[in-house]
Amino acid sequence: MDHSTSLLRLTFFLLGASLLVLVVRSAFRLPIDASLFDDAAGSCTRFSPWACRQQPSKPSKPPSHDHNSDVPRHPLDPLTVTEINLAAALLRAHPPFSESPSSLIIHSLALDEPEKPLVRAWQKANKAGLNTPLPARRVVAVVRFHGESHVLSIDLGPNGAIEALPVPASGYPTMTMDEQVALCAAPFADPAFNASIARRGVRITDVACLPISSGWYGPDEEGRRVIKVQCFSMEGTANFYMRPIEGLTLVLDMDTREVVHISDRGAGIPVPDAKNTDYRVHAGTGDDAKKKKRGAAQQASMEELGFEVKGHKVKWGGWEMHVKADARAGMVVSMAEVQGREVMYKGMASELFVPYMDPTEAWYFKTYMDAGEYGFGLQAMPLVPLNDCPRNAAYLDGVFVAGDGKPYVKENIICVFERYAGDVAWRHSEGPISGMDIRESRAKVTLVARMAASVANYDYIMDWEFQMDGLIRIKVGLSGILMVKGTPYSHMNQVRRNEEMYGTLLSENVIGVIHDHYVTFRLDMDVDGADNSFVKVEMARHNTAPGESPRKSYLKATRHVASTEKDAQVRLKLYEPSEFHLVNPTKKTRVGNPVGYKIVPGGTAASLLAPDDPAQKRGAFTNNQIWVTPYNKSEEWAGGLFVYQSKGEDTLATWSERDRPIENKDLVVWYTLGFHHVPCQEDFPIMPTVSASFDLKPVNFFESNPILKQRPVKENDLPVCAAASAAAA
Amino acid sequence: MDHSTSLLRLTFFLLGASLLVLVVRSAFRLPIDASLFDDAAGSCTRFSPWACRQQPSKPSKPPSHDHNSDVPRHPLDPLTVTEINLAAALLRAHPPFSESPSSLIIHSLALDEPEKPLVRAWQKANKAGLNTPLPARRVVAVVRFHGESHVLSIDLGPNGAIEALPVPASGYPTMTMDEQVALCAAPFADPAFNASIARRGVRITDVACLPISSGWYGPDEEGRRVIKVQCFSMEGTANFYMRPIEGLTLVLDMDTREVVHISDRGAGIPVPDAKNTDYRVHAGTGDDAKKKKRGAAQQASMEELGFEVKGHKVKWGGWEMHVKADARAGMVVSMAEVQGREVMYKGMASELFVPYMDPTEAWYFKTYMDAGEYGFGLQAMPLVPLNDCPRNAAYLDGVFVAGDGKPYVKENIICVFERYAGDVAWRHSEGPISGMDIRESRAKVTLVARMAASVANYDYIMDWEFQMDGLIRIKVGLSGILMVKGTPYSHMNQVRRNEEMYGTLLSENVIGVIHDHYVTFRLDMDVDGADNSFVKVEMARHNTAPGESPRKSYLKATRHVASTEKDAQVRLKLYEPSEFHLVNPTKKTRVGNPVGYKIVPGGTAASLLAPDDPAQKRGAFTNNQIWVTPYNKSEEWAGGLFVYQSKGEDTLATWSERDRPIENKDLVVWYTLGFHHVPCQEDFPIMPTVSASFDLKPVNFFESNPILKQRPVKENDLPVCAAASAAAA
Repeated sequence: MDHSTSLLRLTFFLLGASLLVLVVRSAFRLPIDASLFDDAAGSCTRFSPWACRQQPSKPSKPPSHDHNSDVPRHPLDPLTVTEINLAAALLRAHPPFSESPSSLIIHSLALDEPEKPLVRAWQKANKAGLNTPLPARRVVAVVRFHGESHVLSIDLGPNGAIEALPVPASGYPTMTMDEQVALCAAPFADPAFNASIARRGVRITDVACLPISSGWYGPDEEGRRVIKVQCFSMEGTANFYMRPIEGLTLVLDMDTREVVHISDRGAGIPVPDAKNTDYRVHAGTGDDAKKKKRGAAQQASMEELGFEVKGHKVKWGGWEMHVKADARAGMVVSMAEVQGREVMYKGMASELFVPYMDPTEAWYFKTYMDAGEYGFGLQAMPLVPLNDCPRNAAYLDGVFVAGDGKPYVKENIICVFERYAGDVAWRHSEGPISGMDIRESRAKVTLVARMAASVANYDYIMDWEFQMDGLIRIKVGLSGILMVKGTPYSHMNQVRRNEEMYGTLLSENVIGVIHDHYVTFRLDMDVDGADNSFVKVEMARHNTAPGESPRKSYLKATRHVASTEKDAQVRLKLYEPSEFHLVNPTKKTRVGNPVGYKIVPGGTAASLLAPDDPAQKRGAFTNNQIWVTPYNKSEEWAGGLFVYQSKGEDTLATWSERDRPIENKDLVVWYTLGFHHVPCQEDFPIMPTVSASFDLKPVNFFESNPILKQRPVKENDLPVCAAASAAAA
Repeated sequence: MDHSTSLLRLTFFLLGASLLVLVVRSAFRLPIDASLFDDAAGSCTRFSPWACRQQPSKPSKPPSHDHNSDVPRHPLDPLTVTEINLAAALLRAHPPFSESPSSLIIHSLALDEPEKPLVRAWQKANKAGLNTPLPARRVVAVVRFHGESHVLSIDLGPNGAIEALPVPASGYPTMTMDEQVALCAAPFADPAFNASIARRGVRITDVACLPISSGWYGPDEEGRRVIKVQCFSMEGTANFYMRPIEGLTLVLDMDTREVVHISDRGAGIPVPDAKNTDYRVHAGTGDDAKKKKRGAAQQASMEELGFEVKGHKVKWGGWEMHVKADARAGMVVSMAEVQGREVMYKGMASELFVPYMDPTEAWYFKTYMDAGEYGFGLQAMPLVPLNDCPRNAAYLDGVFVAGDGKPYVKENIICVFERYAGDVAWRHSEGPISGMDIRESRAKVTLVARMAASVANYDYIMDWEFQMDGLIRIKVGLSGILMVKGTPYSHMNQVRRNEEMYGTLLSENVIGVIHDHYVTFRLDMDVDGADNSFVKVEMARHNTAPGESPRKSYLKATRHVASTEKDAQVRLKLYEPSEFHLVNPTKKTRVGNPVGYKIVPGGTAASLLAPDDPAQKRGAFTNNQIWVTPYNKSEEWAGGLFVYQSKGEDTLATWSERDRPIENKDLVVWYTLGFHHVPCQEDFPIMPTVSASFDLKPVNFFESNPILKQRPVKENDLPVCAAASAAAA
């Protein structure tokens, strides 16, 4: 048995609420109270939080960037360390919180982005070389105080005014990281839980637990903020996800951390074996491969990166944009312009919906909304150089806020890199038919901005890729580890014919449960200006008249401008295809075509749950793949501002019921991509990356193709390289 | 005006049929009769065929590989130069061809692949280190003689026996390259054609023509082998495709090269302007970009490539396969094995279908079947190093046969390279919830085999990409130049409301006509053995019983084994999703799952033409995205062996009507991917690459994920590089 596996459990077991903040702090590089690290150093193992690596004897390299002195330089720059401290101080001094500042729990402090016209005016002045002051800096705060949620707007200017904003009718704020950690530890204080673990023959010191958002399934589950906790055995593996303690579900009150209910049904289901589940290289995997040498080396670190990152502004290949980390959305791309023309004001993953397809007691509620429940940025971890991102990547940090209002820095959670994948942007050879000696080809070089969020077992890799021809590809990669279910079966021959398994037997006693993933993107498009229209270009068979042509039919495209929201709700149809254009109706090309961008769906999946299933009501924002809404500042989160335990009254589907006019207006486009996942043995004990993407593609935006300006790669453009071993010799 | 633009025209004009073979020869590096190059040298310009570069004063580098001494080393190796010469000699000596050998036109000579059991036995013995002789080498020949098509089987062994094979009921063989070139020149001998060109104010010396396969549109078009020729002005641009001489269509007899009919309807439609259409770097494009330096350098040329190419055998990352060029299919991948286990016996693009959506006189017939009509391999051109394929690519040549039976070599038409695109094969970080210090990530490294076919204006980039986890991605990229239509309009405000344009006004007098592309792949799968079954895993909503669960619904997967062909005809449905497994019913995993691979469709499109449209009848192989047939040696080409002017009686759709049993048999899977293309201004004057793909993915093929064996990239793995400029200093 691995001696160190009990450490995480021990950590959880020993921690009382008063210590929890310390855990969270020690998990990150805190710019404040660095002395706290010394306290944590005593319990260091390879399973321990990172801060353990920052022992005095082995100092970490200095932070690449000291965020304590950050000042915002762009109207959309996220809150700085100083601004977070100021906002938290203002909140603590504000009644009623001032009566008991230690009872105030800060769920989020985020930049209240200035109104678009102000930002655009600033940008214009800044481009003209004027040293314009930033628009007023404001904060949106979501807090809990004595069991009540509050949403507040804070003015960071001299008057420090705080204004209360409306609170959603149902649901609760995104969990704080402190809560998520503390809730994992709470079960260990419960005697019934300990007894159940003991009955199953699992040592309590081997147990690790996860907080699982509970969704909302009717009035019985209302009235308090609850979470479900399920546990795993860490004995013999770091991959505890493969060792579920099946059927044991605790319902906890998130505010009091009391156990409200224990469901203990898994008697007779063994904890699956640890064998062959560990994935760490130093745990013994990868030995075979070590002998092989990989030839496809990564590109050189050049003197010039080929792109520029200044603060949050990124410039490359005719593109300019603002990239930042956000505690809830993960990565936000703003003010994307190509060749000086606006394309997108703001783009981000707005919400996720991950329903599992098992209606039984311990599984029915697993219908995650990862962004709003767990915080996609909060779950992002530093990217692993050379493996998560290539050598020529630049990295950006995130500055977030802990439950006590203290800022902390997560380093390197976004990477930006120029990609050459060996693909061809455009090519043409004159062939033997014409015999002309023409062989033109342009290597495809793109810019990628990436974040990876590790929401417990699953790892989401979010890519925004920019092409020189104006195309933006938005890609979601799913990787990490499956959420599995324990079962008494160790072979399919034990399973009765037609027995409902809800998934696939992946290994002895392990079922991979079928589930879907939906990621809904909010795309505030400003195609060559703020006001756009949505045009469906419908393609349908047109039959020729008798005698008109030897052909009986052809495909005809018809343009249809959507006048209201319902006109623009799209369910994709393979046999009734359309293109989806966002055009600027006031701008035309030289030959009179409307200037636009189109949304090009990739492979996707659609939710098939019953529309009146509570899960689908909450996830109703996935009912269409495309929605178009008029810009509304309060409509940022497709599942609602408070999705935790929400009932679904505040989703994109609800807003869009108003059927507002959308012609020639400032529009927001919502696109949902989806995956059905029927697990197979290749998903055990880890899951290779599966990805899906969609494109935003210029359509009559340029007069002709911009690739014409790209020159071919020549030998002299490339770095001179030698194998590392040769160079060392 | 560019003085050299008239050269191609001149070349065509001066060439009589007797010279045509010379043109074809000079377009390639001929291993035979190299002295012919001298004859061609006199007319060299930058528009001239390549051979012009091989002038005595500027010798080309010696061929990387002398194919004259090639011998086959694997049962599936393509015919060698020697074998082609032998086969052609045997044919010429065979009655009735021996009566007039110069009248024999050889349309194809291809390896008649030995029966699968022989090949498998050879492979097994070879792997065991035995020096086994190759199975007998045989040739399938398709020839024309005195206006009749013949299909013959030739034994290359000592007896040299020739056997006649059945000839399809309709249609003609793939055109020879000689024909394709000659047909372009034929119109210039016709007075009516010259008069029409003159009336349009185009100088005859500026005209270039293209041979356009005529399809089949009823009995009027039967009884002779015809082709339609349309022409373009080359004045002022290499991109003559953008300058159609609209409405002028010549019907030629392919055998006699007579003009059968001229349709001349385009009076009043100007030839679009040459301005801004040229795409060549040295013609003035790319200047802006020249100043910029690209940072995303290509990977270093390492001492070790990371993969092995020996003859046609490729080894990499647990994979082993045989890769070769084929005159008709383009690239063929055979005997793909991963970790010593069979996956696919043979995979290739079997046929294409490219219907244009304009039923008018000069356009209705444009419903190309590029592989069977033009030859996908015949149209492949040498790949451009550093732009078509990265620096670390290895190249393979193709050996094809000219109409006179002489072999010729097309160098570097396939490239093989290891790809690192900056993507992640698998990653998992333990997040702040558990606090465990785990950050594992594996860079995704793959192997790509690529060919690009330039079928006149269009360039198809065909990729087979192999992943270390057993996945095969098959990707088709479309690039090149649009086929456009002339129009009197120069602005959309001249177009009447609801006027049928059949496309988009791309520039003054240029319409990009709507069209589809379908590529049908033939995949002879042998998943862990020859005999497989096809299983549809259907996912559908299952409603819970009242009171069963707080959830009302979930997605349930049901396995359905297809017993006959019709059971396995799949039209993809987004809202009735399925997985498509090929399983080996005799093999099970440790826990009892059937060993298999699944076909994972990507984004695609479906043909919407009327089923009784002659075009769709011929392209009926696109009626489903997936078909499964029992292995049948004669069923290789989805549109039939003779697709040229075929009526559609010999397609996959016809064969599959027999509804043969397919359970636990040697199966062939057919997958069609599709594109709808509504052109936009970004497709002018060149078209950026658009791609679609599908995957063959292991499903319970491995007991657990093979990525576990892959180690992370470390700094020492990477080459030491310096920017070229720095190194030079």
